[in-house]
Amino acid sequence: MPIKEALKTMRQQVDAGLEAVMLKPEGLLSDHIEAMRYSLFAGGKRVRPILCLATAQALGTNNAALLTAACSLELIHTYSLIHDDLPAMDNDDLRRGKPTNHKIYGEAQAILAGDGLLTLAFELLTSEKISNFLTGREQVRLISVIAQAVGSRGMVGGQAIDIASEEKDIPFSTLRFIHCCKTGALITASVQAGAIIAGANQEQFALLTKYGENIGLAFQIIDDILNVEGTAEQLGKAAGSDAKRGKATYPDFFGLELSRAKAGEAVANAVSALSGFDKRADFLRELAEYLLVRKK
Amino acid sequence: MPIKEALKTMRQQVDAGLEAVMLKPEGLLSDHIEAMRYSLFAGGKRVRPILCLATAQALGTNNAALLTAACSLELIHTYSLIHDDLPAMDNDDLRRGKPTNHKIYGEAQAILAGDGLLTLAFELLTSEKISNFLTGREQVRLISVIAQAVGSRGMVGGQAIDIASEEKDIPFSTLRFIHCCKTGALITASVQAGAIIAGANQEQFALLTKYGENIGLAFQIIDDILNVEGTAEQLGKAAGSDAKRGKATYPDFFGLELSRAKAGEAVANAVSALSGFDKRADFLRELAEYLLVRKK
Repeated sequence: MPIKEALKTMRQQVDAGLEAVMLKPEGLLSDHIEAMRYSLFAGGKRVRPILCLATAQALGTNNAALLTAACSLELIHTYSLIHDDLPAMDNDDLRRGKPTNHKIYGEAQAILAGDGLLTLAFELLTSEKISNFLTGREQVRLISVIAQAVGSRGMVGGQAIDIASEEKDIPFSTLRFIHCCKTGALITASVQAGAIIAGANQEQFALLTKYGENIGLAFQIIDDILNVEGTAEQLGKAAGSDAKRGKATYPDFFGLELSRAKAGEAVANAVSALSGFDKRADFLRELAEYLLVRKK
Repeated sequence: MPIKEALKTMRQQVDAGLEAVMLKPEGLLSDHIEAMRYSLFAGGKRVRPILCLATAQALGTNNAALLTAACSLELIHTYSLIHDDLPAMDNDDLRRGKPTNHKIYGEAQAILAGDGLLTLAFELLTSEKISNFLTGREQVRLISVIAQAVGSRGMVGGQAIDIASEEKDIPFSTLRFIHCCKTGALITASVQAGAIIAGANQEQFALLTKYGENIGLAFQIIDDILNVEGTAEQLGKAAGSDAKRGKATYPDFFGLELSRAKAGEAVANAVSALSGFDKRADFLRELAEYLLVRKK
């Protein structure tokens, strides 16, 4: 199946999974849950859940725990977008072509929608949907890997440095840190979550981690390039917004051409990490290549 | 030992535990970590960690997992205070007699300090400090109970309804819901966390849960009363702030006298839940009584 169709199928699978695990508007909590659902079902690409599913597939595993863990990754990603878009942060009015969460529900409810999504992710990660397939220790490890990736030494820390670095002349090492933490950590954890659920051995886990880290890097470089080159229509958000906010990007340091080459290099490193895996890892390989040609 | 001294000793134990588990300012993340530490070490009463420790003590257990779990409860409580104080929420300038987090670090960094503290709590809950004393399944249950208590059907949901109910004529059932979720859920979970770590049986767990629910209710009613009666100096925050923001309180529905009686009733129910426990539960009993006479 061509990659685009395969991605669409997996996206549909994730969307169905999200619908199954997500709270339904009810009673006093209706508005709060609507606010969470608004951003969760706003048409995301579901990259992180797909990476989780595809990694387990590369190891020959497919069970119900996987989709639950995959959904929790998307809940966390959605929370991070809602908080990043807030007026106090990136102050974005558009996300995926739609008004951002606080534009619809107000700042207070947007902050709480984010808080709720993050916490619901941990609820799901502790649920029987996962306990049924993992030992207690494995489940704790799964939660641990994800919590570490999205905390202060991961995603949250990356965002803190990103915000603090606006309008500042930062060295490349700081940009690298921001990318690694803000985007890379959750992408890597998505691959690791799939690996843990599939019972990867230590060597497989290390190789898949290397794949995840390089995918994360490529993903962020391409994001930077698209932010310079893309149109608002393609991106679903304001183009050139990084420059407008004085955010450093890969093209600032290396220009577009060299940035593209560095993304290519990261993809090559990701694919090479999989050289010992059989054809069940083909989807992970194609996904890596696809990152280079995506337009949004 | 008189209760006040015992509380002070336990508070010091919790503060030392928090210092041991909390991230230290370092490198790029210094400011972010400083922001988290500022609110964490702003002189909290440590009620939730103390409840966790005291519950395990009532069952004859004292191990290193307890203090770690207790600390994670305080991280979560601190995150909730930082987010609640934000301009978009309660817009408070003072907390525990000091400027609120966003007053010092700005809104963006305050939101991220909260996000970081919540996530660090889950990191701690998955750590070896706890794994060394619990089975994997027990540890997952511990995380699950806490995640459920502080998510959309608990603390976050309570805050969402609280904010949405300002300046509105709400029925008592809504106030009850807000109290149960916003304050009660984490207090109950603190007791439950101690019970799980101490290996409580099903009956003990149910009784301790009843204790926690009633303590939580009494705590919130007294909070409402103090907000009407207390001085800013006693409270460390603006007095009368509930009325100013059009927040419904117990005294609004029942007047001060009947509210005080209802708090007394909740404390009596809490104490009666412990009737089958031996003298190791005396501290929990005294703590419940103490709630009625506290002045801040």
